[in-house]
Amino acid sequence: VDLTAARERARALDDADPIGFARDRFVVPDGLVYLDGNSLGAMPRAVPDVVQDVVARQWGDDLIASWNTNGWWSAPARVGRALARLVGAAEDEVLVADSTSVNLFKLMAAALRLKPERRVILSERSNFPTDLYIAEGLIELTGSRHELRLVDGAEIADAIDGDTALVSLTHVNYRTGAMHDMADVTARAHRAGALILWDLAHSAGAVPVDLNGCGADFAVGCGYKYLNGGPGAPAFLFAAHRHHAGLLPVLSGWMGHAAPFAFEPGYRPADGLERMLAGTPAVIGLTALEAGVDLMLEGDGAALRSKSLALGRLFVELMEQKCSRHGFRLASPTDESSRGSQICFAHEHGYPIMRALIARGVIGDFRAPDILRFGFAPLYVRHADIWHAVDHLSAVMDSGEWDRPEFHARASVT
Amino acid sequence: VDLTAARERARALDDADPIGFARDRFVVPDGLVYLDGNSLGAMPRAVPDVVQDVVARQWGDDLIASWNTNGWWSAPARVGRALARLVGAAEDEVLVADSTSVNLFKLMAAALRLKPERRVILSERSNFPTDLYIAEGLIELTGSRHELRLVDGAEIADAIDGDTALVSLTHVNYRTGAMHDMADVTARAHRAGALILWDLAHSAGAVPVDLNGCGADFAVGCGYKYLNGGPGAPAFLFAAHRHHAGLLPVLSGWMGHAAPFAFEPGYRPADGLERMLAGTPAVIGLTALEAGVDLMLEGDGAALRSKSLALGRLFVELMEQKCSRHGFRLASPTDESSRGSQICFAHEHGYPIMRALIARGVIGDFRAPDILRFGFAPLYVRHADIWHAVDHLSAVMDSGEWDRPEFHARASVT
Repeated sequence: VDLTAARERARALDDADPIGFARDRFVVPDGLVYLDGNSLGAMPRAVPDVVQDVVARQWGDDLIASWNTNGWWSAPARVGRALARLVGAAEDEVLVADSTSVNLFKLMAAALRLKPERRVILSERSNFPTDLYIAEGLIELTGSRHELRLVDGAEIADAIDGDTALVSLTHVNYRTGAMHDMADVTARAHRAGALILWDLAHSAGAVPVDLNGCGADFAVGCGYKYLNGGPGAPAFLFAAHRHHAGLLPVLSGWMGHAAPFAFEPGYRPADGLERMLAGTPAVIGLTALEAGVDLMLEGDGAALRSKSLALGRLFVELMEQKCSRHGFRLASPTDESSRGSQICFAHEHGYPIMRALIARGVIGDFRAPDILRFGFAPLYVRHADIWHAVDHLSAVMDSGEWDRPEFHARASVT
Repeated sequence: VDLTAARERARALDDADPIGFARDRFVVPDGLVYLDGNSLGAMPRAVPDVVQDVVARQWGDDLIASWNTNGWWSAPARVGRALARLVGAAEDEVLVADSTSVNLFKLMAAALRLKPERRVILSERSNFPTDLYIAEGLIELTGSRHELRLVDGAEIADAIDGDTALVSLTHVNYRTGAMHDMADVTARAHRAGALILWDLAHSAGAVPVDLNGCGADFAVGCGYKYLNGGPGAPAFLFAAHRHHAGLLPVLSGWMGHAAPFAFEPGYRPADGLERMLAGTPAVIGLTALEAGVDLMLEGDGAALRSKSLALGRLFVELMEQKCSRHGFRLASPTDESSRGSQICFAHEHGYPIMRALIARGVIGDFRAPDILRFGFAPLYVRHADIWHAVDHLSAVMDSGEWDRPEFHARASVT
């Protein structure tokens, strides 16, 4: 195997990368190979200045006037408008607010109300847990008239039936990177008279998403992964126009009122999607997220996907060349059209292997029970990073370094 | 009337102020008299540096490792622990999370579940609207088995009966500054077998609060008013120990799971109050809030209350001296033991008067239909500020300046 040639090839691909310019728009610490942008995206270089401005000037100097003069009031809709372009939504179909979990609750509750005669929320067993937990909590709260039915991912389409009120799926699986065919599953849900809610946590900014092209009903997504919005960034929610007027805002806070400053004792929902706002928006977090979304919009969507797939292809190829004898099993789909922007390998010693790799400055993450997860944020991950990652991983395995006691110790957050 | 003497007296009071040192720990722009800390607290001087650190170093350089190494994971409990000291709670009885509206929803839902045989949420008609709206949304969602009953503030205690599941009140009224007797109303609720939830939005950091001393069941509060946590800061929630094991977490997100990184498909609540966490915490906002709470803890509670009352007393006295002929009516209680840390006057031309005052650099706010609201954050408002505020207000009235057309134009956020 000619590894020097592979390294040269990676460099050549980086030199020819049409979105290679974007790497310098992020802070990536020297010597780090950061393949965990699907957990916490890297920081756009613009962020410290925009956050300093919102804090020191807007809050410190302009104080309460900033709600008008510095656009705080309109931030949830403004950042939502920018984000809409990334996910194939109309500009008034996306709002930035709360966390993904809270937005799931709002939209699931509203969706069930639109299908009062149906009893089932259908999801997949391997969905991200918060999506399942939130459905459980909602069902418990509303008196257990509904049921959360879980099936394997491949069985979803066939499991949709006349009892299904809502199909709730994460587009790209957090653990394996497997990607549902959004258009196909949405069409299947609609043919059965069901609604569909897509969780775009591992999609927005990572793979092409066309919510309206697919006819999707609802979606939520995360601000701090591929959108690079910073730790605990506000999340977003989408609802198709046709549903706006009928949406029941169950977290009916003052921000979603038709006249928030009339301070009326009774709730009247705002006309449009704004009714899905609850409390006062997290202005500082919104500002950081806005910088991330704006930067993402500079990259061409087709170029992002093309690079993401090339990175994954190179990773799989190099793993075969350099690590094939070490017992890794590809846990992501082999068909790249069914993959998000990550590659996962299963290994019985996955936890200490990942700790050893992180100690060498290659940052991926571990997901129980045995998954090593590598995310490829196409704006700042380079082909050369892939080469280095596999080079270190092979060294970790060849040397037996992964089996040192310190790599077996569990961190509180993994 | 000897106004020069009043001014000298104000200066002397500032010179003798035991918490006068705190003013310099905040940024208050030159020439501004800021009496709107009950809407958005002023910025602690420490904030730009701590926010820069969380952004540039913790996020930018340390990236995902920060969840462990920089204490992101523990931030909701850590800031809650500090906040607990301000409100008379045990250190594991307060969490910082989400918005006040969302926390209201969580605690109201959990409270109703603890009193399954009772039907009524009792509140006051002039409560802050979001408290009422959230109750409405919850009742609608759970199938209208409950009723939101609204009475006048003075009638609350007598309206609690055997049908009351939950009494939901804001301790200090947002519009008038009238303060409930927390111990008395809590005891009345408990004697009738009801639970009580206090909204501390205008209390925490402004007036003494002793939740456990009063035997309170639940509370929520706001981070961006007297706690000076910044625009849209995360809010907090309190539940007494005795309720923790029975709390139903209806917004059952992954952060509240007993083992969040086990990624189990079924929800199991964490043992303690952590089960009331839903999604990923807003780390940047939490960091700014922590600086505000830490600063607040440097002030002695009795000194804060004493100064707050002295500021209010001076304001009312000077208004009588200088503005009595202009038609202002004190809308706050005359008995200062029943007042929070704000003074309100009603005036039929309240809106343009407040706009004219703001144009002179005296920042209060207007609350429909006719209330001019002045908040006294005791850490940074000085007696001299009160003198200047009334001096400007009398000039605005004496000159007729308030009636200029530009002051009648409505801003989008007031």
